[in-house]
Amino acid sequence: MATQEDPGKFELKHLCPETLARRGTLHTRRGAIETPAFMPVGTQGTVKGMLPEQLKEVGAQIILGNTYHLYLRPGHERIARLGGLHRFMNWDRPILTDSGGFQVFSLGELRKIDEDGVRFQSHLDGSAHSLTPELSIAIQEALGSDIMMVFDECIPHPATREYIAASTARSTRWAARCKAARTDASAALFGIVQGGMEQDLRRQSAEALLDIGFDGYALGGLSVGESAETMYQVMDWTLPLLPQNRPRYVMGVGTPENLVEAVTRGADMFDCVMPTRNARNGVLFTSFGRVSIKQARYLEDSQPIDPECDCPVCRNYTRAYLRHLYQSNEILASVLNTTHNLYYYLQLMRRMRDAIATGGFMAFRDDFYRRRSSDGEV
Amino acid sequence: MATQEDPGKFELKHLCPETLARRGTLHTRRGAIETPAFMPVGTQGTVKGMLPEQLKEVGAQIILGNTYHLYLRPGHERIARLGGLHRFMNWDRPILTDSGGFQVFSLGELRKIDEDGVRFQSHLDGSAHSLTPELSIAIQEALGSDIMMVFDECIPHPATREYIAASTARSTRWAARCKAARTDASAALFGIVQGGMEQDLRRQSAEALLDIGFDGYALGGLSVGESAETMYQVMDWTLPLLPQNRPRYVMGVGTPENLVEAVTRGADMFDCVMPTRNARNGVLFTSFGRVSIKQARYLEDSQPIDPECDCPVCRNYTRAYLRHLYQSNEILASVLNTTHNLYYYLQLMRRMRDAIATGGFMAFRDDFYRRRSSDGEV
Repeated sequence: MATQEDPGKFELKHLCPETLARRGTLHTRRGAIETPAFMPVGTQGTVKGMLPEQLKEVGAQIILGNTYHLYLRPGHERIARLGGLHRFMNWDRPILTDSGGFQVFSLGELRKIDEDGVRFQSHLDGSAHSLTPELSIAIQEALGSDIMMVFDECIPHPATREYIAASTARSTRWAARCKAARTDASAALFGIVQGGMEQDLRRQSAEALLDIGFDGYALGGLSVGESAETMYQVMDWTLPLLPQNRPRYVMGVGTPENLVEAVTRGADMFDCVMPTRNARNGVLFTSFGRVSIKQARYLEDSQPIDPECDCPVCRNYTRAYLRHLYQSNEILASVLNTTHNLYYYLQLMRRMRDAIATGGFMAFRDDFYRRRSSDGEV
Repeated sequence: MATQEDPGKFELKHLCPETLARRGTLHTRRGAIETPAFMPVGTQGTVKGMLPEQLKEVGAQIILGNTYHLYLRPGHERIARLGGLHRFMNWDRPILTDSGGFQVFSLGELRKIDEDGVRFQSHLDGSAHSLTPELSIAIQEALGSDIMMVFDECIPHPATREYIAASTARSTRWAARCKAARTDASAALFGIVQGGMEQDLRRQSAEALLDIGFDGYALGGLSVGESAETMYQVMDWTLPLLPQNRPRYVMGVGTPENLVEAVTRGADMFDCVMPTRNARNGVLFTSFGRVSIKQARYLEDSQPIDPECDCPVCRNYTRAYLRHLYQSNEILASVLNTTHNLYYYLQLMRRMRDAIATGGFMAFRDDFYRRRSSDGEV
């Protein structure tokens, strides 16, 4: 692992002449990430059902690890003693860690916020814990994260303007504490813009974070139940406020359409459980829309999931077999479905990167939407 | 797939000078199997948690498919229309199919036997079915099995001598009906010696099957609750009755020790759910005995499962990580544990094959037992 003077260094390679889409390279101490990039989610030290070599085979450049889950089990200090998260899970490419905030705030009744941080009860055993900006950074550093995220509140939607303003201001103070708490200068630290669905609060948040100064900037608080139009509106307001020479990460987003729209608006990085969780529920992504593999119409269908897909699953297995595995509750159903869905997401990112680089992003968009309007089933 | 004049052709390559152990090659229409061989069990058209390429990586030469399960779901005729079981599950090496008898007889209250066959209710939906020797062969042929097994009763233990005698005589009549029902001469058909734990009934069964004539011979009705000594006694009585120039398959066996003892007594082929089912329950096989990975002593153990094992899991993962995956109920726990256990079983067979070929089988046996007496934990 190399040290790096400018963690989060972002090389802007191509700008789409017709949209805000960007093609770039994000440099981390564990290697470069070509952007726009999608990060598969590895909650508990594994992307569910996938071996590291399978993740590489489908094209994962970086994965996301969850601070909250790993803090509770097996414990960040234990992972540190075992050589860090990369060694623990046998993944040698970059890892971005979230701050734990999203999961802790999702605990509802089990958590209580004050200026210092959040007190909460473990979802595993009810034990009492407290998570602060300082502890979040300490955990992320113990895990050996290559890109750390500031500890913040992902504001629920809808929320009152008063709540959003107060929460966002507190998240800004926490962001400054996170930066001060950092001890490992070779790992990047990203700030997270909050501000709910309020344009001026998003602007205030972005400006305050820029004043503090981070290696990259994220949009948080999206995909929380708002409409797609509102999500795109917040992106339109916020992404142009962020510096061109820093990576922009839209957190927790989203559907294939969301990714195309976010890239159109200048976003570089994404994470979402959608491809992996849907896979385990038998919902598959294709060039023509989503497919629910459990349907009886696939009982004897000898076609691959997506005849236009060249992933290892579509090359070797029929819809009939995948339906059989799903109906039989077989482990291999999750493995194959996850492989296909991640390949779909990562291939979508590759196509967008290629399209931006060759000046054909608008043509790509048109083609993307034209195909999906025809035959999607779900 | 080649046609074959003598399906089940067995080339005897080496005989151990001190035991009855044999090193041979079994020729099937989908390729050769070096024996002694262990066959991973693929009940529902998949060896649970394993991709076909992973099975090959750990050294599987042949797998077992379950007639009962595939008949009920997705249906043998459907699999035939989809190109057969090999195509369905993307496995191009040989497949041996059981007859369905073992599962049907295991249904207890849900089944009824008469001379024609067995009437039973599906464990999936309670629907009524009837399985006969003729239907069993038709199913196995529809699946595209390379080695078919005769339909018989796996006699429970203990059973009265009268029950054993009557059941074995009926199984012999069913075996003749199976041979008569075969329409595909390029797939091998194996007879199954029954006779419970009675020496004379085992002899009668073996002689009757030899009179009918099969491509290979199996010992059924073992691993049904009898002691290891009784199991070995039945092998001692029965295996020497079988022809040297035909493969000998001991069904449903067993532990690593059982395999070593059966090979010592002249057996060539085995199947058992033990490595795969144990893997899913967190029980791992090692050169020093069994390990239950869920134990707290492995929480921070940075060693591989078995420091002497060179499988893909032991090369890349610690006991601490495998314990974490198991405790977290992660899919990857089953995948990695199954990979290791199958490698252990298949490596054990490779070592026995090498030892017999080089005249060192007794030294292998001694070493095998010496290592296990030291440190096995379960």
